Amino acid sequence: MSRRTLKLGAVLLGVGGPGQHNTWLDPEIPANASVDVNWYIARAKEAEAAKFDLVFIVDSQFITRNSPNHYLSRLEPLTLLSAIAVHTGNIGLVGTLTTSYNEPFNVARRLYSLDHISGGRAGWNVVTSGDAGTAGNYSRDEHFDYPTRYGRALEHVQVVRGLWDSYEADAFPRDKESGVFLDPEKQHALNHRGEYFSVVGPLNLERSPQGQPVIFQAGDSEEGRDLGASVGEVIFTHAANLAQAKAFRAELRERAAAKGRDPEGLLTLPGIQLVIADTDEEARSKEDARLGTKSFDRALKELGRPFGWHDFTRYDLDAPFPEIGDAGERSFRTQANSIKKLARDNGFTLRQVVQHLIDAARSPFVGSPETVADTIQHWFSEGGFDGINVTVNAPSEFALFTDRVLPILRERGVVRSEYESDTLRGNLGLPVPANRHTDARHPAPALAP
Amino acid sequence: MSRRTLKLGAVLLGVGGPGQHNTWLDPEIPANASVDVNWYIARAKEAEAAKFDLVFIVDSQFITRNSPNHYLSRLEPLTLLSAIAVHTGNIGLVGTLTTSYNEPFNVARRLYSLDHISGGRAGWNVVTSGDAGTAGNYSRDEHFDYPTRYGRALEHVQVVRGLWDSYEADAFPRDKESGVFLDPEKQHALNHRGEYFSVVGPLNLERSPQGQPVIFQAGDSEEGRDLGASVGEVIFTHAANLAQAKAFRAELRERAAAKGRDPEGLLTLPGIQLVIADTDEEARSKEDARLGTKSFDRALKELGRPFGWHDFTRYDLDAPFPEIGDAGERSFRTQANSIKKLARDNGFTLRQVVQHLIDAARSPFVGSPETVADTIQHWFSEGGFDGINVTVNAPSEFALFTDRVLPILRERGVVRSEYESDTLRGNLGLPVPANRHTDARHPAPALAP
Repeated sequence: MSRRTLKLGAVLLGVGGPGQHNTWLDPEIPANASVDVNWYIARAKEAEAAKFDLVFIVDSQFITRNSPNHYLSRLEPLTLLSAIAVHTGNIGLVGTLTTSYNEPFNVARRLYSLDHISGGRAGWNVVTSGDAGTAGNYSRDEHFDYPTRYGRALEHVQVVRGLWDSYEADAFPRDKESGVFLDPEKQHALNHRGEYFSVVGPLNLERSPQGQPVIFQAGDSEEGRDLGASVGEVIFTHAANLAQAKAFRAELRERAAAKGRDPEGLLTLPGIQLVIADTDEEARSKEDARLGTKSFDRALKELGRPFGWHDFTRYDLDAPFPEIGDAGERSFRTQANSIKKLARDNGFTLRQVVQHLIDAARSPFVGSPETVADTIQHWFSEGGFDGINVTVNAPSEFALFTDRVLPILRERGVVRSEYESDTLRGNLGLPVPANRHTDARHPAPALAP
Repeated sequence: MSRRTLKLGAVLLGVGGPGQHNTWLDPEIPANASVDVNWYIARAKEAEAAKFDLVFIVDSQFITRNSPNHYLSRLEPLTLLSAIAVHTGNIGLVGTLTTSYNEPFNVARRLYSLDHISGGRAGWNVVTSGDAGTAGNYSRDEHFDYPTRYGRALEHVQVVRGLWDSYEADAFPRDKESGVFLDPEKQHALNHRGEYFSVVGPLNLERSPQGQPVIFQAGDSEEGRDLGASVGEVIFTHAANLAQAKAFRAELRERAAAKGRDPEGLLTLPGIQLVIADTDEEARSKEDARLGTKSFDRALKELGRPFGWHDFTRYDLDAPFPEIGDAGERSFRTQANSIKKLARDNGFTLRQVVQHLIDAARSPFVGSPETVADTIQHWFSEGGFDGINVTVNAPSEFALFTDRVLPILRERGVVRSEYESDTLRGNLGLPVPANRHTDARHPAPALAP
């Protein structure tokens, strides 16, 4: 094995796995954890003590009564991360901000402010808003269609990155003796005029410790993969099995290479569900019990989300999966289409589709600490992922991973024992993008032949 | 005197007064203070130790090379305040966010998140963007005209306040035994459709400790005063002399009363320049020295700002004040007009206008600790203000106020000795607005006849 090590992300109060919609029922988790800054700070400190690369905060800007409980009421990610920043020292801070309903100038400032405040630990999870209802919270009658959502997203990231290059690293001499504060030659307007945005610049914030905060991206659609390959440096995804994980990672790397990028600058980190116990058998029973807490009725309701919160409760459960036209066309289209395909290919009834989705929530990462460490190491060495995103809900469950699985992986050299850098970019081993202006004026010397 | 006490605000790294554009040259101030979170946290802690009601962060979203030096590069206010929130416990946290280039849903979430994180200490300084060039950073060809800026601002605040009432205080039972997380009867959509915004809601964040964070406002124009009287709870202003200060406060209170508001719910806090030394004479010499550091050339350049950064250096200094048409019509119109009027009424040359503005920067609050305490007490008891906003640049200067002036004012009962509440609203003695939905369902009982 090379010296490449497994990257570790901690999703704070995440969803997506078995039973996670009811995390608040866990006796260990304060029922109001999603609005309790101290809960988040404590979890981030635990992740930092275990030398995790980053904590990650998900987001959405629209709720329905079907939304997962703690999504109904939660703190805005960047505001939260700034509070976490000043109570931690090494761990990366990755926040979700949508490109659909934010101005690039504001996004650039806020992430750059977080990068300054944290000493170079900011990451931006670039998303487009999937829930069609979001438009109603932003003075729009209609949600952006798919091509617009992704077209805006790509241009948005390009504008933000351009604004981040507004100043060269030494643009502010701030020489008290000579009275020179700014070197105006090293301040650069952007003068961007594109299809979706026109931004003159410059940003009103000097170059940050990372220069360019790290770009995270998730999104499984064709458009999402293209965006990830274009601008993503870390890709969040999910992985049902090793073959799928390998194929996804390989595809993203190929797409990035086809765009002229070094694929080593693109890390794939699926979110994985860990179920750890003393023995494999106990771990399997634990997962069974957990899946049991996810009721069929709840799953039936949640099936509606990718289809724009379509109401499936009104159909006969034992009739063939209903024909629902283009519901979902402006929401989570890829997920909706794959559910339709599943039903069509298998001739499933509505009940069978729901049961299939419940069963599919089973995790490949279930077992004793040894078994889980083996599985992670195997997937990693086979090229299934560059790192993993672990959900932090109950602290005792997270401790099973940090105290019992991580030591095995460290022993084997899969995971590093100490932070290697002061910045998130440095710890992830990602290249440092040069400032386009500095580069233009001082081109890199040609390599010897 | 009633039990009403003087409110205290601390402007962190403010501008506006004599010599403040060169604060970074002060040997006590780190040259990069405007991007140093630790500098801000330390100042906020000092203000909290002195029992200040609030710290205040100004903002703008556009810079030119004429911008004050530390405006060229500074942290975004809300991101900064969240970091300060978790290192302080009592002091209010007031951030500037423009209504011109932010979505109400995002503003409501961010301020409410700060209110949760700080345990009820958030305040919003509502502004419209005055610099016409700001439009260029937000994909607009033209800056909003005056009526649009203020029309948007009023409706923006109304939408934000409506979103803050999305949940009644007991909307989230989060009862682990019964499994009830939300009481949907206590969740309310907004369904706002106005001239500038359409916002469905509800907000995805439950009622915060203050319920309604405190609304701050500044703006001297007719439209600005009207906005302050409509929605402001604390008005930031400036005051050249007692008569002007009294007139401004009286006018705002009358306007508020005319709108059916209790004028006691509207506090006026001018920003004041303190120049304190052991004796009155030393203090006057100190101000002279400070004014001397503001060069004529610098003042000539800055004269351009209210006129949309009009370049005054191209005119003959000793000719009559130039005729510049409607420059400034979309910028700081009131300020521009008052300068034009000053020139016209006095027949001033350009040089005389600039010199007049330099001289007008002299402060009424110059003297020994006794003198300054006397002046503040006099203005306060005469109805010149409800509190003051003190600029915090050099810590030793701020300490002259906290250690030498405040004890005198405390001794006299003008300033309280301890925080009286856990919230900013509580410390300012402002009424707690009821949730419109709770109120509607449970009308207050009629008073006994």
